[in-house]
Amino acid sequence: MKVSVVQGILSANDQLAAQNRDQLDQLGICVVNVMASPGSGKTSLILRTLDQLAGRMRVAVIEGDIASTVDADKVATRGVPVVQINTGGQCHLDAPMLRNALAQLPLDQLDLIFVENVGNLICPVDFRLGEDVNVVIASVPEGDDKPYKYPGIFLAVDAVVINKVDLLPYVHFDVAAFRRLVTGMNPGLQILEVSCETGQGIAEWVAWIVEQREKRRRP
Amino acid sequence: MKVSVVQGILSANDQLAAQNRDQLDQLGICVVNVMASPGSGKTSLILRTLDQLAGRMRVAVIEGDIASTVDADKVATRGVPVVQINTGGQCHLDAPMLRNALAQLPLDQLDLIFVENVGNLICPVDFRLGEDVNVVIASVPEGDDKPYKYPGIFLAVDAVVINKVDLLPYVHFDVAAFRRLVTGMNPGLQILEVSCETGQGIAEWVAWIVEQREKRRRP
Repeated sequence: MKVSVVQGILSANDQLAAQNRDQLDQLGICVVNVMASPGSGKTSLILRTLDQLAGRMRVAVIEGDIASTVDADKVATRGVPVVQINTGGQCHLDAPMLRNALAQLPLDQLDLIFVENVGNLICPVDFRLGEDVNVVIASVPEGDDKPYKYPGIFLAVDAVVINKVDLLPYVHFDVAAFRRLVTGMNPGLQILEVSCETGQGIAEWVAWIVEQREKRRRP
Repeated sequence: MKVSVVQGILSANDQLAAQNRDQLDQLGICVVNVMASPGSGKTSLILRTLDQLAGRMRVAVIEGDIASTVDADKVATRGVPVVQINTGGQCHLDAPMLRNALAQLPLDQLDLIFVENVGNLICPVDFRLGEDVNVVIASVPEGDDKPYKYPGIFLAVDAVVINKVDLLPYVHFDVAAFRRLVTGMNPGLQILEVSCETGQGIAEWVAWIVEQREKRRRP
């Protein structure tokens, strides 16, 4: 009885995610869902990406947080459309939240939307939004053993962005071992190494994002 | 209808947490629930603490993870009793899980139990275990804005441990501003600055833990 209720909830979310997807397909908009632990650099990566894409692509951002508009305020300085979702305690975004956020964006003037999910390596994995691309950021100071402990998210994503590589000299993080581990878990995965602090690797990341947008562009 | 079901679940957990607490009270064991983001140094802090308390206090550790025994394996090297809880996907520990873990420990030979919760700043806050002391670790590379975004956990804890202070020269983290922010939110909060890498501040943290154990020792 309990199980069937849970399945009902997931299925309602999945149905609404599919509706979001249909709407975005019709408009030709690619949605990138960025997931990670708190403080791994989700907002910083989005800000760096906005700077690179300025004038090349029409981008908007949807910021998900338990509380506050700290991240949306930062994004707003870049002059792109931004919507803050405050989940009011919920540990992940879901398809109804995305639907409400989309209603506040100028969708007919967009090519790409970044969704910054709530800082959490666990719960966001289970809730589809209607996104095209799923990305997880692995922050170097968090250590290289996260895929062992949070396998679900590394199995679910299209790309892993290793961020804060400028801190590699000061922490224990074996990039080669981490690459072997996640590639073994998810062989099709794209792995990118960046520093949002120094800008290292950002051009490669942005090229990959542009490629995803081209690949998934709707007819 | 939906709300009353959720209340039912929480209440069942709270009831079992109270039972855990009664059992631990009778045995005179103090339980410290350590919460934080993934990769903030929960296991490293526990290992440092075990080294300092060796021969002074009888300590056990309960490790909570979605998957793997990586952390429990590290703790086992210290020769203390350790139980790994694999939540199988659940994003937090709960009172039934603690109850099962306690049943596997030599409770009549313990003074203190560290519980390492699942790496998550959100969900663990809502589930009491039967613990005496709640601690959150704030890792310096995560940035100093986490209390704005995850207020619940900073309101719920007895202490904030600022970890990885050895990385302060390389990242943006204003310790004074962070201290003002969390003290404003939760005035009774203990704030400790440590580096599990260099050992800085560990003695003060361990002294605080010993004090909590003394203060809460049962008759």
